[in-house]
Amino acid sequence: MAGFHTPVIIVNFKTYMEATGRRAIELAEKAEKVSRETSVCVAVAPQLADLSAVAKAVEIPVFAQHVDPIKPGSYTGHVLVESVKEAGAIGTLINHSERQLKLSDIDEIVKITRENDVLSVVCANNPTISAAVASLKPGVIAIEPPELIGTGIPVSKAHPEIVAGTVQLVREVNKKVTVLCGAGISHGEDCAAALKLGTQGVLVASGIVKAKNPYMIMREFAEAMKR
Amino acid sequence: MAGFHTPVIIVNFKTYMEATGRRAIELAEKAEKVSRETSVCVAVAPQLADLSAVAKAVEIPVFAQHVDPIKPGSYTGHVLVESVKEAGAIGTLINHSERQLKLSDIDEIVKITRENDVLSVVCANNPTISAAVASLKPGVIAIEPPELIGTGIPVSKAHPEIVAGTVQLVREVNKKVTVLCGAGISHGEDCAAALKLGTQGVLVASGIVKAKNPYMIMREFAEAMKR
Amino acid sequence: MAGFHTPVIIVNFKTYMEATGRRAIELAEKAEKVSRETSVCVAVAPQLADLSAVAKAVEIPVFAQHVDPIKPGSYTGHVLVESVKEAGAIGTLINHSERQLKLSDIDEIVKITRENDVLSVVCANNPTISAAVASLKPGVIAIEPPELIGTGIPVSKAHPEIVAGTVQLVREVNKKVTVLCGAGISHGEDCAAALKLGTQGVLVASGIVKAKNPYMIMREFAEAMKR
Amino acid sequence: MAGFHTPVIIVNFKTYMEATGRRAIELAEKAEKVSRETSVCVAVAPQLADLSAVAKAVEIPVFAQHVDPIKPGSYTGHVLVESVKEAGAIGTLINHSERQLKLSDIDEIVKITRENDVLSVVCANNPTISAAVASLKPGVIAIEPPELIGTGIPVSKAHPEIVAGTVQLVREVNKKVTVLCGAGISHGEDCAAALKLGTQGVLVASGIVKAKNPYMIMREFAEAMKR
Repeated sequence: MAGFHTPVIIVNFKTYMEATGRRAIELAEKAEKVSRETSVCVAVAPQLADLSAVAKAVEIPVFAQHVDPIKPGSYTGHVLVESVKEAGAIGTLINHSERQLKLSDIDEIVKITRENDVLSVVCANNPTISAAVASLKPGVIAIEPPELIGTGIPVSKAHPEIVAGTVQLVREVNKKVTVLCGAGISHGEDCAAALKLGTQGVLVASGIVKAKNPYMIMREFAEAMKR
Repeated sequence: MAGFHTPVIIVNFKTYMEATGRRAIELAEKAEKVSRETSVCVAVAPQLADLSAVAKAVEIPVFAQHVDPIKPGSYTGHVLVESVKEAGAIGTLINHSERQLKLSDIDEIVKITRENDVLSVVCANNPTISAAVASLKPGVIAIEPPELIGTGIPVSKAHPEIVAGTVQLVREVNKKVTVLCGAGISHGEDCAAALKLGTQGVLVASGIVKAKNPYMIMREFAEAMKR
Repeated sequence: MAGFHTPVIIVNFKTYMEATGRRAIELAEKAEKVSRETSVCVAVAPQLADLSAVAKAVEIPVFAQHVDPIKPGSYTGHVLVESVKEAGAIGTLINHSERQLKLSDIDEIVKITRENDVLSVVCANNPTISAAVASLKPGVIAIEPPELIGTGIPVSKAHPEIVAGTVQLVREVNKKVTVLCGAGISHGEDCAAALKLGTQGVLVASGIVKAKNPYMIMREFAEAMKR
Repeated sequence: MAGFHTPVIIVNFKTYMEATGRRAIELAEKAEKVSRETSVCVAVAPQLADLSAVAKAVEIPVFAQHVDPIKPGSYTGHVLVESVKEAGAIGTLINHSERQLKLSDIDEIVKITRENDVLSVVCANNPTISAAVASLKPGVIAIEPPELIGTGIPVSKAHPEIVAGTVQLVREVNKKVTVLCGAGISHGEDCAAALKLGTQGVLVASGIVKAKNPYMIMREFAEAMKR
């Protein structure tokens, strides 16, 4: 159960108060429960300040939300891949539409994470950008059209052509990379649709973190994704 | 001993491997020992991923190295003041020369930290910039000429006019703010010189973190600063 | 008429199509006409690509909208102060709320413009930031609350306390700097109010550029500002 | 002679004083002379403030060094594609290693330039990044290893595998895009080598701009590239 596998739900905690500090641990524990009950991989991406406490509390995969393109040294205020790994993260999101990076920094981070055996999940705004990212050979690409983030309009149901188009363009360049989709994912059927369109999972934030009963939503998602 | 007081030594862990993970805790424990033995305040600024573990391990003041000008919400990969506070930080560095910020972001972060009762330590490159920062009313200003950082040429001994000039310009604008200096601080006499020039302490990184015996150096610094 | 003097109206052309290319020259010629007719200084800040053509066409002061903190060298895609000066600019805006800069870059640009005898107009979002900028000793400070830009709600009429507060805070730090205000300036009376509150002019964009008859508006502004 | 064609030499004027203002025009005129004498396309990329004057003075293709991912509107201090086009540019460099961009901004700029019939020349640091850029379908890709820029060590002679590798990776993704190489190009034989490795030209800066006799160097380059 502990390792990263697909199908996968990655829960992005962003900087929501509902997923900060003690509440980050509680939410991660609910994710772990769902993971245990369904055998679907439910991973969490808490804030950096919560990373080690969350990683200690649960056995599901834990991700950072960002790392910097740096090696150990004089980089006050930056995020070293080695530090998030030692804190218990098995991977990291990068280039989320709320924290976009220079192309050369994405390339550098993908290389550094690979050297440190840390899984890179590179977010991309659209199919073309996803194809570009595929050439950099990250572990995972997550397509998230920013105009749908937080809207409750599920990309996989409302815009299947975006998801299918991404999968196709990415596969032309890179056969191996895992592809996820996100933005507006709110129901189990959105997750099922995502898998049918060729992805191997979803990246979700407010749909779970801001839900009245996050456990129920994660459970619904996982049930819909069980093979 | 626990609270922030002056004279103070703030040890910036940067992203040095010597101060990452388990070694961050060990270094913080040495700082705590010196603090206990000398009654000089020795504070530490570990990486974000190490913040909560360090704050749990020691009773000296712990600082973040950076926070972002944000409120709770959709800010993947950013650093929320509330998160570092709940993780145990009593304050944060910002605008270090290795992580410089927009003027309006410094203003915003100073306000947000104040609202959250978190101490802001704003770094500044030169006397003029220090005076500008003084108008924003942060808790602490730390002058660090970037050309001296990591050189072992102590700003307080080699360029006393920079330190004295900063104190004077800052005081014309703001009588209350605590003023520190940093860059090249390597010996106890550099710390004593810093206090004589009107500052209330020092901000140090490689001089301690990269030392063969960090405890001995911190002890030397603290002895030289005892009133 | 050619030199910069107060009271002054600086017209920021932004990247509006109404003020691009040939239309930038036409708008600058109208500004020159008003300047000639009223003896109020009307200055223009066209886009970089239009700078030299505008400066050749008119004798009023021409400003760049931004320059970078660089000396001549290997800085592809950056804006060299020397280049805008040779193209005919007598000054430059910097740190507009749409193009905000790091504090240390503002400090550096103010120094570089001074060395090149180019007038720096530093924009600031609020009174506190204006006071901070005053320590850097630029030629001009322009307070523009971003929440009012483009709204037609004139800062000088709707929020006189912001303008008066800025003038007071700035004067405590710097007696000499010229202070302008902007945001929402739409009528002659807004300009008169700005002067009454202690400023020496206004920074305007859409109120003039997007007007049906920019000449008439500029004339109205200038008449209201005549001493 | 006026249109962009290959083989091509693009001369990047950067922010060198040797290529600022009046001297930008003189250098462009020399490029035009070489273009006329050899029928090799010699294009120039002056600073923005010099763009319109250079475009008026010569009939060779003129490029901007950077544009921003914006449409007309409220973007003080930004570079509008429409403005550089009206000033006479037929294309623009973007993402030079001295002015690197976010991946999503490169994607957006490539789209905006295409809509405005402006040729995009996207710079890339290494073969992998070049392949990523190829998915965005720009007009031209220029590979320039930053560690060789300005060194006089020609990428095409000293590191043919980088150039050949780029051509191969790019062609797997995109058959049509023009590929250039740059960095350290100093002699005619470096240009000939570049063509032999499968590129269609070179991007050069200091090798020409800082030369004692830029005309002679450009002439040597063009002779070596004649088919």
